[in-house]
Amino acid sequence: MVDTIFSKIIRGEIPCHRIYEDSQVIAFLDVGPLSRGHTLVIPKESAVMLHELSEDSVVAVARVLPKICRAVMRATGAVAYNILQNNGALAHQAVTHVHFHVIPKYSEEDGLGVRWNSAPLNPVEGKELANTIVQELMA
Amino acid sequence: MVDTIFSKIIRGEIPCHRIYEDSQVIAFLDVGPLSRGHTLVIPKESAVMLHELSEDSVVAVARVLPKICRAVMRATGAVAYNILQNNGALAHQAVTHVHFHVIPKYSEEDGLGVRWNSAPLNPVEGKELANTIVQELMA
Repeated sequence: MVDTIFSKIIRGEIPCHRIYEDSQVIAFLDVGPLSRGHTLVIPKESAVMLHELSEDSVVAVARVLPKICRAVMRATGAVAYNILQNNGALAHQAVTHVHFHVIPKYSEEDGLGVRWNSAPLNPVEGKELANTIVQELMA
Repeated sequence: MVDTIFSKIIRGEIPCHRIYEDSQVIAFLDVGPLSRGHTLVIPKESAVMLHELSEDSVVAVARVLPKICRAVMRATGAVAYNILQNNGALAHQAVTHVHFHVIPKYSEEDGLGVRWNSAPLNPVEGKELANTIVQELMA
């Protein structure tokens, strides 16, 4: 178990602008927002990456995430938003405790900016890769 | 209800490189991947944005999402990944049916690129905004 700034927030050792809390989940405003209303929704269970979190905690987050999105949109007037959940330093994870960003988008300039350098999937490679993933899912 | 390319995939009218399917969820390789293993996990229920989806469908996706992430990482060898879920055209939503991107990250150059122009949260505005969101959550 890794102690992070989020563990300290969960234990109440660091203050936050809390918007929601239950026995498994806490949500609060990001102190370095990308846009007005940028919110973090986190499980209280300590895990670094999403696939390391218990199903129970993932489900607990999932139950409240849409309600929190709706409330953030109503409170801010935003009509678009991104959910981002980063796993690993290379994928821009800054705090090693699973967290979901809810990031309102008001214009092209604010909120989450994404670079989308996609390329077509090769059908033969796609078939082979899909089979490999299916095997891992059943392992 | 909006008919999209994803509705057609769910109904089996368009082929896909499927990696998972149950009564509520289907997952398949993105045909325009940002990186090897880029996967889409979608509820079968038709809703445009996450906050419009039933709790039942959100939970069904949440139950399988971590397992799919783990399988994609094992199959590809990736050690980092991003989960991205876009809501609204302004937030880069291209298909108007809720979908979660699982995007492996192998290097700075591939996968999801993010622009992170954050600014410190003003504590007074933060307190006021948090209160407004809490009121909307309880409404």
